[in-house]
Amino acid sequence: MNDRTYNVVIVGYGGMGSYHCKLIEPVQQISVIGIYDIIDYRMELGMADGYKAYPSLDAVLADDLVDVIVIATPNDVHKEIAIKALQAGKHVICEKPVTITSTDFLDIVEVAEKENRVFTVHQNRRWDEDFRIIQKIIEGRTMGELFHLESRVQGANGIPGDWRQLKNYGGGMLLDWGVHLLDQLLLITDSQIESVAATLSYILGTEVDDGFTTYITFKDGLTALIEVGTTNYVKLPRWYLKGTEGTAVIRDWDLSGEIITRNRNVPHIEPKPIQAGQGLTKTMAPPSEESTLKFAIERPELESQSFYENFVSAIEGKSELAIKNKEVHRVLVLIETIFEAAATKSVIQRSI
Amino acid sequence: MNDRTYNVVIVGYGGMGSYHCKLIEPVQQISVIGIYDIIDYRMELGMADGYKAYPSLDAVLADDLVDVIVIATPNDVHKEIAIKALQAGKHVICEKPVTITSTDFLDIVEVAEKENRVFTVHQNRRWDEDFRIIQKIIEGRTMGELFHLESRVQGANGIPGDWRQLKNYGGGMLLDWGVHLLDQLLLITDSQIESVAATLSYILGTEVDDGFTTYITFKDGLTALIEVGTTNYVKLPRWYLKGTEGTAVIRDWDLSGEIITRNRNVPHIEPKPIQAGQGLTKTMAPPSEESTLKFAIERPELESQSFYENFVSAIEGKSELAIKNKEVHRVLVLIETIFEAAATKSVIQRSI
Repeated sequence: MNDRTYNVVIVGYGGMGSYHCKLIEPVQQISVIGIYDIIDYRMELGMADGYKAYPSLDAVLADDLVDVIVIATPNDVHKEIAIKALQAGKHVICEKPVTITSTDFLDIVEVAEKENRVFTVHQNRRWDEDFRIIQKIIEGRTMGELFHLESRVQGANGIPGDWRQLKNYGGGMLLDWGVHLLDQLLLITDSQIESVAATLSYILGTEVDDGFTTYITFKDGLTALIEVGTTNYVKLPRWYLKGTEGTAVIRDWDLSGEIITRNRNVPHIEPKPIQAGQGLTKTMAPPSEESTLKFAIERPELESQSFYENFVSAIEGKSELAIKNKEVHRVLVLIETIFEAAATKSVIQRSI
Repeated sequence: MNDRTYNVVIVGYGGMGSYHCKLIEPVQQISVIGIYDIIDYRMELGMADGYKAYPSLDAVLADDLVDVIVIATPNDVHKEIAIKALQAGKHVICEKPVTITSTDFLDIVEVAEKENRVFTVHQNRRWDEDFRIIQKIIEGRTMGELFHLESRVQGANGIPGDWRQLKNYGGGMLLDWGVHLLDQLLLITDSQIESVAATLSYILGTEVDDGFTTYITFKDGLTALIEVGTTNYVKLPRWYLKGTEGTAVIRDWDLSGEIITRNRNVPHIEPKPIQAGQGLTKTMAPPSEESTLKFAIERPELESQSFYENFVSAIEGKSELAIKNKEVHRVLVLIETIFEAAATKSVIQRSI
């Protein structure tokens, strides 16, 4: 037929489920053959899209043609479906947040190891261009050594009006967007976390957080402010990084931004005081044009999302998983610590 | 001679000392007659500017022509000079931060009360246009009820290369700029502080902080992030305010900015998902044009700085001081709490 080897069924054919079909489409050796959803109209949409609609999860798992299950359901049922699928001999890809607690995640990993199947979590935002650029900026040391970063995602639409508003389903912004921003953060440094402070916001009156702010310190001295908001009509920059020689900013998904550094070729010029408000300031006067350098944000070579290539390669034992389960576990432990810091209104000193 | 009644001597004729001369110049009933500084060239500058240069502080205080002393020296000698001047029967204006500890400040206030002289601190940034605008935005409730504010001052020049780098002189950015931003913050709400978290930065290797970040919660639910940095080559906005109906931003001293709110006349439209990085997002999609309203930042009627008018009026018993000593004391207690929170790496739960 073709050279595709691995057949996928998507469980949960909502926004993310159908997005996985698009991600899989261009990839060799893997193809979607069917879907399953508990909502009838989504089954019809799946059929209209050309996929087999399985009548039940058990029917999916009983089908020997199926090699891989993609779980794109609400968060509360990820664990149950994942364990069932692994025990039925399927490889499993799960949407994020994989589970609501870190121990639930370890239970899944234990089954995957026992069944010798591949289990991984779709932390797709590791491939975001803005994050890739930030990694290159940090490695390239254009702005010296990174000592502080701020990573924010802000919207003004509130929480989507679905299960994401409900606690039992694993709703809330810390689990939804936090899991991405924290996953990215932990890839930026090899250092362990030293302390975590956090506040959750409940502006919209939902039972889950509609945003959060967390301040994290690492043992190597790096500090990070991570923030998600859903009631921000004006956005602060997506990324704001301070280095020993300069500052980098990426403002939005459009990758607008710049890096400004001191110019080492120019001797330090004490700035002249300026009038700022009802006072003079020398400290906050802008540095002279000559004393700084400005660099554009360079887009990295376009890299197609390699999640599914890596997944196929991992099934065949040729590569390690790009998204390692121990990394996913660490992020979940961090999320639990953020919930704890917010609930206890304290700074939690903990190696993570 | 003229209708000016009160004669001022400036003690400490550096940048701020000479700035006071300019502030006093247009004000009726008060004029600068002399200066005193421990540095010879500043005495010469003062004479060149037309002022009498007193040979010593004692000579200033012994001169019955002198009614008012303005203290614009390094912070460590404010207390000694203030108490001496009050005991010599002078009214006293002191630059900020008035003292390094809150108890030192209470010692001065006690002497002022005993001697029945006016003592006040020059918290000039209460008259900053950006702050006045922010106060009007909050009162006007254009963006609903304020629940979170961020107030930042960021520069890239490091700490000025003088006593401001030295601990014993009361240097450091928390005392220098923090005292302004915190003074403004405490005027924004009538609520008491509930908790304080903070970190100081020591990027430049000075013995004093070159910046700080503090997260403050109030009993009425308001939260505030206050930040000063001296190694920021790209600035975050001067003010960022979140209300229940919208967001307000003032970007810089030039007062650029806007207020964006939801449009109550339009029913809630669920936004369409957008591609953002390597993923879809509905939550972080921009709201539709029709569903929001944009307001310009309106400059308040130009109000000349009324610090010295008020001071004269207070001497004559006609007005209360604009800058009340109990307000100044509260800011100093908050600063001490920020130092404590940073040193202990903890969230300090304390009514302030």
